[in-house]
Amino acid sequence: MLNTLPEPDVIVVGAGFAGLAAADRLSAAGCRVVVLEAQQRVGGRVATVHLPDGTPVDLGGQWLGPQHARLHALAARLGAQVYPTPTDGHNLLYLGGQRHLFRGTVPLRLRPLTLGNLGWVLLRLHQLSQRVPLETPWEAAQAAAWDGCTLGAWLRRNAPDAGAFTLSRIALEAIFAAHPDELSLLHALFYLRAGGGLLHLVATGGGAQQDRIVGGMQTLAERLAQEVERRGSSVRLGTPVRQVRTEGDRVVVEGEAGAVRGGRAIIALPPSMAGELSWHPALPQDHAELLRRVPMGSVIKWAAAYEVPFWRARGLSGQAISDEGPVHMTFDASPPAGKPGLLVGFVEGPAARRLASWDPAQRRQEVLRCLVRLFGDQAGSPQQYVERVWSAEPWSRGGYAGLFPPGVWTQLGQALRRPEGLLHFAGTETATVWNGYIEGALQSGERAAEEVLTCRL
Amino acid sequence: MLNTLPEPDVIVVGAGFAGLAAADRLSAAGCRVVVLEAQQRVGGRVATVHLPDGTPVDLGGQWLGPQHARLHALAARLGAQVYPTPTDGHNLLYLGGQRHLFRGTVPLRLRPLTLGNLGWVLLRLHQLSQRVPLETPWEAAQAAAWDGCTLGAWLRRNAPDAGAFTLSRIALEAIFAAHPDELSLLHALFYLRAGGGLLHLVATGGGAQQDRIVGGMQTLAERLAQEVERRGSSVRLGTPVRQVRTEGDRVVVEGEAGAVRGGRAIIALPPSMAGELSWHPALPQDHAELLRRVPMGSVIKWAAAYEVPFWRARGLSGQAISDEGPVHMTFDASPPAGKPGLLVGFVEGPAARRLASWDPAQRRQEVLRCLVRLFGDQAGSPQQYVERVWSAEPWSRGGYAGLFPPGVWTQLGQALRRPEGLLHFAGTETATVWNGYIEGALQSGERAAEEVLTCRL
Repeated sequence: MLNTLPEPDVIVVGAGFAGLAAADRLSAAGCRVVVLEAQQRVGGRVATVHLPDGTPVDLGGQWLGPQHARLHALAARLGAQVYPTPTDGHNLLYLGGQRHLFRGTVPLRLRPLTLGNLGWVLLRLHQLSQRVPLETPWEAAQAAAWDGCTLGAWLRRNAPDAGAFTLSRIALEAIFAAHPDELSLLHALFYLRAGGGLLHLVATGGGAQQDRIVGGMQTLAERLAQEVERRGSSVRLGTPVRQVRTEGDRVVVEGEAGAVRGGRAIIALPPSMAGELSWHPALPQDHAELLRRVPMGSVIKWAAAYEVPFWRARGLSGQAISDEGPVHMTFDASPPAGKPGLLVGFVEGPAARRLASWDPAQRRQEVLRCLVRLFGDQAGSPQQYVERVWSAEPWSRGGYAGLFPPGVWTQLGQALRRPEGLLHFAGTETATVWNGYIEGALQSGERAAEEVLTCRL
Repeated sequence: MLNTLPEPDVIVVGAGFAGLAAADRLSAAGCRVVVLEAQQRVGGRVATVHLPDGTPVDLGGQWLGPQHARLHALAARLGAQVYPTPTDGHNLLYLGGQRHLFRGTVPLRLRPLTLGNLGWVLLRLHQLSQRVPLETPWEAAQAAAWDGCTLGAWLRRNAPDAGAFTLSRIALEAIFAAHPDELSLLHALFYLRAGGGLLHLVATGGGAQQDRIVGGMQTLAERLAQEVERRGSSVRLGTPVRQVRTEGDRVVVEGEAGAVRGGRAIIALPPSMAGELSWHPALPQDHAELLRRVPMGSVIKWAAAYEVPFWRARGLSGQAISDEGPVHMTFDASPPAGKPGLLVGFVEGPAARRLASWDPAQRRQEVLRCLVRLFGDQAGSPQQYVERVWSAEPWSRGGYAGLFPPGVWTQLGQALRRPEGLLHFAGTETATVWNGYIEGALQSGERAAEEVLTCRL
């Protein structure tokens, strides 16, 4: 039972990268921390499983980009090895029933009109996003108009060319795991800027998918948890939290396993999970409403393992973009030794919702059908196939991240990072850089820890 | 403890008008029903309080329109008396710092351009809304485009005249208790059509605010609960539900007070409250996501009581529209005898969020400041002042109703009324007529009851 724990200085709710980063910083500064995690593992939306032969497969957050300074520093500190996503060979573009080969991030052999329109969309999104202040998106000069319209409506206006529309939509769905109609244009611009721009976000070499962790990303979370415990703090698994109470100068965090009392608490959960906690006293109205108005994206991540990465012998990188779904993007995720060959990819947004209700065998068949279309018959018979339906995960309820529908940033955004008495808020959704990414989770955890340390001075 | 109850045929979760209407229909058909209600009262978003002199004041749903056939029939059956909202005297329009008098629903003495633009907005919303099928809004020919844009974006395009924009926005905020940017245009069109049109929704005489119930609307819910209990079924107050389990051919509904086992269950809660229940087995993905993606509007309702309705002697109806907030609309809600004089009104959407965090005295002062601007100094000194901040109500979390942000109707709308095994769904948000109103709640409860009865045949 929790009640037997010595009273900690800080209680952290959630052992994803945000919560662990906060616990790491605080325990290093001499605080006693208790981290409460609902699941039987740490990592949150980072989850590594193992194939029967021991091959680690990341079914959650997986990649490091060159700009992910915190994540790279963490990997170095914890002795984790980083290795690159292969970029040799041609990428595939499957468009209008035709397979094309290309290199780099943008397929350039498109119809001139399509290419021109695609260029306009990319340029315009880049320009507009530069005008969004990352700390205070609601203060953008055009915040009201941008937050009053959807990304989808903007895209329909700005991509009259059907090919440009389709490619833009595929890229945006891959970034947000949502239909562009579900989110505010202001949120999209903020998110793109926070992550260094759209091209950066969909790229491998030089981009957000550049590198991976040997052994799987979850090992990093596990090592971080060990660091925290080594310093005398503790990480309690299988301990869901239901209620957060402030009693005088103490916070009481309570769940089925009992209650912990501490000096301060850091809530390191996705907004929609935090919104289901019961708060005493109630959170200020705007903060409570914000937590209930930021739903998660919808995503299924799958991985297919083959004896070898057979596509490499054919001069292919394993990366593909397809206008026929439900799989619109794939990546080579083979381990460093190149054995087995591993393709991973996603089903996102509306398609993820549709496939979530299918039975797993049917879903597998549908994904493999897409792979055969891209990589030939051999892709249809993997040795292993694994997947995770993130929307069905009871402690995540979706992925990659929480998304702001229209009107939420401008009306409620000011509550996002606001401490409430003894309570502090972390989670990648509260990050000002790489929002929605592991890097953003780390930033948010460090920031929340600094808030606590500043209060204690 | 609930465990001691004899096993009912049907468990109804929630004793608002939806749940009570379902229990009424089922118990009349010979079923044994148990209604579980979290609060210590029935009525849900209908709530009557009493002033020290015994005057009933409706701080929740209050009005009946002439088209509310179910609600009128219910009032007649239960022997409740209906009396009209006064329409004698002039209505007030406060616009650009000037007070104007008018009669009817639309102030006609506006600048010709403003009036013309206002007419266009009303006509266009009416025309478009007629193309939304009430059972299946996602099948409207332009559903994708309408659900991909916000009502606010549409309004900015269609109301270039500042006065027309302001008046339209006031009317729409009064109807939805939300900023027009928060909701999908498709939802707005659906909702307007379901309620007989915008003009109907904001009108008193002939419109949705035409009549009231002597003694307060909650008395109707109480009498309905008595009817249900008289037939041997039971309504249990103070019984929050946390979990809904299906076990073979039985449903188990569980909360802190224990568990009830029954043949079927009707969930008669706002979507966002239902979304916080724990479901075993999990709801199908689209249904689960839908419940988490329909946030409530934000509204504060207040009532100020004066010795007499002093505005009547000055030839005023008590109805007012103001472009200066936070109070944009008021109504005369005095009891039939005309003593005390009662003004009621709302603070909606963004303003409701802002004022929700104020202390009550400060909020009262701000509301009274608005009333003085409209009705003179006398309005500043009521004998009594009461209010309800609906967003802060733990078992409603807002009002008047759940609102669909862009993308939700077209992607998830098909799950809205779908029974899931032994589970059925009611609540005004599931209604196809008068969605968001008491009338819609009644329709939804009756429909869910019919589903159960049909299954049992």
